[in-house]
Amino acid sequence: MDKLLKNLKYLFEAKSLAVVGASDNPEKLGCVILKNLVEGGFGGKLYPVNPKYGKLLGLTCYSDVLAVGGNVDAAIIATPAQTVPGILEQCGRKKIKSAVVLSGGFAEVGNDALEQQVKGICVKNNIALIGPNCLGVLNPHTRVDSIFMPFYKFQRPAPGSISFITQSGGVGSTIVDLAASYGVGISKFISYGNGAVISEAGLLDYLEADGKTETIILYIEGAKDGRKLFEAMKRTNRKKPIIVLKAGRGEEASEAARSHTGNLAGDYLAYKAAFRQAKVVEAESLEELFDFVKIFRQTLPRGRKIGVITNGGGIGVLTADALQQEGLELGRMETGTKKAVGASLPSYGSAGNPLDLIADAGVEKFSGAIEAFMRDANMDAIIIDVLFQVPPIDERLLKVLIKASDDKRKPIAVVAMGGKYTEEQRRMLESNGVPTYNNPLSAVKAVKKLAEYAEYRRSL
Amino acid sequence: MDKLLKNLKYLFEAKSLAVVGASDNPEKLGCVILKNLVEGGFGGKLYPVNPKYGKLLGLTCYSDVLAVGGNVDAAIIATPAQTVPGILEQCGRKKIKSAVVLSGGFAEVGNDALEQQVKGICVKNNIALIGPNCLGVLNPHTRVDSIFMPFYKFQRPAPGSISFITQSGGVGSTIVDLAASYGVGISKFISYGNGAVISEAGLLDYLEADGKTETIILYIEGAKDGRKLFEAMKRTNRKKPIIVLKAGRGEEASEAARSHTGNLAGDYLAYKAAFRQAKVVEAESLEELFDFVKIFRQTLPRGRKIGVITNGGGIGVLTADALQQEGLELGRMETGTKKAVGASLPSYGSAGNPLDLIADAGVEKFSGAIEAFMRDANMDAIIIDVLFQVPPIDERLLKVLIKASDDKRKPIAVVAMGGKYTEEQRRMLESNGVPTYNNPLSAVKAVKKLAEYAEYRRSL
Repeated sequence: MDKLLKNLKYLFEAKSLAVVGASDNPEKLGCVILKNLVEGGFGGKLYPVNPKYGKLLGLTCYSDVLAVGGNVDAAIIATPAQTVPGILEQCGRKKIKSAVVLSGGFAEVGNDALEQQVKGICVKNNIALIGPNCLGVLNPHTRVDSIFMPFYKFQRPAPGSISFITQSGGVGSTIVDLAASYGVGISKFISYGNGAVISEAGLLDYLEADGKTETIILYIEGAKDGRKLFEAMKRTNRKKPIIVLKAGRGEEASEAARSHTGNLAGDYLAYKAAFRQAKVVEAESLEELFDFVKIFRQTLPRGRKIGVITNGGGIGVLTADALQQEGLELGRMETGTKKAVGASLPSYGSAGNPLDLIADAGVEKFSGAIEAFMRDANMDAIIIDVLFQVPPIDERLLKVLIKASDDKRKPIAVVAMGGKYTEEQRRMLESNGVPTYNNPLSAVKAVKKLAEYAEYRRSL
Repeated sequence: MDKLLKNLKYLFEAKSLAVVGASDNPEKLGCVILKNLVEGGFGGKLYPVNPKYGKLLGLTCYSDVLAVGGNVDAAIIATPAQTVPGILEQCGRKKIKSAVVLSGGFAEVGNDALEQQVKGICVKNNIALIGPNCLGVLNPHTRVDSIFMPFYKFQRPAPGSISFITQSGGVGSTIVDLAASYGVGISKFISYGNGAVISEAGLLDYLEADGKTETIILYIEGAKDGRKLFEAMKRTNRKKPIIVLKAGRGEEASEAARSHTGNLAGDYLAYKAAFRQAKVVEAESLEELFDFVKIFRQTLPRGRKIGVITNGGGIGVLTADALQQEGLELGRMETGTKKAVGASLPSYGSAGNPLDLIADAGVEKFSGAIEAFMRDANMDAIIIDVLFQVPPIDERLLKVLIKASDDKRKPIAVVAMGGKYTEEQRRMLESNGVPTYNNPLSAVKAVKKLAEYAEYRRSL
């Protein structure tokens, strides 16, 4: 990794941060960001910068970064485009190692010269730059946070092991917000916008080496350098699964992408071929990005034979349909399993796969069935369809499912669809690392991606 | 409609209800159901029936239905299978017009003789029977409710115009629960299980004539009589759109379906052909059932040209991708629209379709753009992608979107993905009739189904 890229750690692990363009006007980004850093509990030193103010939120405000007395690790810049080169020059003189430029008005609207100028200054001064035209970064571990959305509208996720690289701030942020609401932990969120200095390939390299990142989501419209991206994907994906969504596939969508982050969306089929070759996990929609990344917190399965356990016959039937459609198999129960689960079924139940425990099954039957499936060599992964709504199911089932999810023998996925009560159960499961889905097809597609990635890893 | 079928109104509009198998043991279905009827505010007379009790929840409890002094419109029966024929005989003598049998233990476990006996008694006595082996019915307009799930786990929806016919109680109930949590109103929910006396075809006929039903969801595993179902679908779908999900497609899933409600799942390709010919709307997953039915509360579009408005560039790009993938067109803006929306855009915005209002757009810009698209003859439907998380958007946008949804000129769909705050906004929109989706592809698929159904209706 080159020196410039390494300097990103001064941003993610910043012990001192300047917020250039800080303000007390709540309509200005610099106001929201400063407030978020203070209220979010950023532990390092904070230096608001704006010649108009003496103090902001009780902190001394500086006329420019050079006026700050102490060391500054990184700068978040939220000022109009034309002021950015001058500010970055000052950052260089102050030996600031990394910066985020949130402002738009660069290559995405045809101001290529301005973007090149920014790039030149950063390269000369070894400033690891994120942006311009982006949301910047969020690191829940250190509370470094340049996202200009207020907390009440956009929840911050807990620290975790999933990292996001996204060209579009809006797309990335919706997924992080969703993750936060389900208690899914995040390592690093990086909205890089135009990617003038560091683009997706560099970010992949950085995250490959990052000790806190285990899985990576990548949303791209058009890569800066397709060849570099391909090589970086191939390298990183061998160690850490990459889930990718490529937007801007058709001609009209591609045109929309160009005016969005100034990058050509390029030929989708070429991207698709590259994804296949690099063996990364491709998502076809925003929803799949989140569906897929969650399952990668589970153990990799040894094969494609799936066991299905349910207390709702219809959901079991739909799961069997989805498995067939996606090319996975229903495992054939071993004799021992048949005996173990058959003994606990009522006369009108049947010990097949899907295993329908019937709506009057209590928590113990789920627990017994899961253990029997964990021992069965013909089951490589277990999908558990739960109707939380029926009377015999209570909170003890959550413990059973969390235990199964922590069990390293096999991966599991839970399907539960319903209203408020069911959603609460799902949140409790997700925040304990259990992947949950609101319909069987989504769960099956995710399990399939996990099985395919497992096959790839075994082939290495 | 035959007389037996007509008698269903004595169930849905019951002024007096017997609950046979009522109990004070919270583990018994009859206990939960009686409690739900009382607490749910059922307005008619309630007669608990069980020889073991003198009173239940303050109500006189009767030894059998014949002991009830007044008239009884319908009976909900929650007693073991072998007791059901005797109870139905008594219902016949009491001139009870309709009944629900919740209990399992009939054809689905091979007890065909018992099921035939039940059928014979009902036909002889003109009892419109729902079940056996089901959840029965829910009518939010009258609070008739035989669902044995407690309120805190399973929310009851508001009165509305969508009706559900479902062979699987579990599948149907998860969608109703979901609908309730989003404030989507329901007309009638019917879980008919084995369908011994009245099956899906009869229920479609009943709902076709039902003044409170505008759209119908149908979930089937295997029809009692495929030809009758096909004819009923064709007739009803001409007036009221039917959204159908067929489960039990593959061989293994089909076997699971047989042991679930005792019906053969049959050849899926034959079903698929019938759906196409009847021009009903086929859903491929549980999720699509709910996604699709919501859009049918909107005006039918005149064509397939779609306008997209967003304050998040990336979401716009993904919407354009989804439109292309699903074979819908991006409408080409009329000159007047270009001028109208162009005037309000910042220098770095572009007046194209998708129209990217940029993250700093406020409520007024959305409002102006929607009105311009409503007037544009090249836009048949409007998809509005909203990032609720950004600072300039506030609750006033909800009013703008509800107004657009009520506007009979064109249908709209809203895409909004995010955490708690965004979900709250979605709930408020849905409870006001605005169809919302958490990703562009789902919205586009729903709009496509609406456009196809509109084409069919124009062809009549």
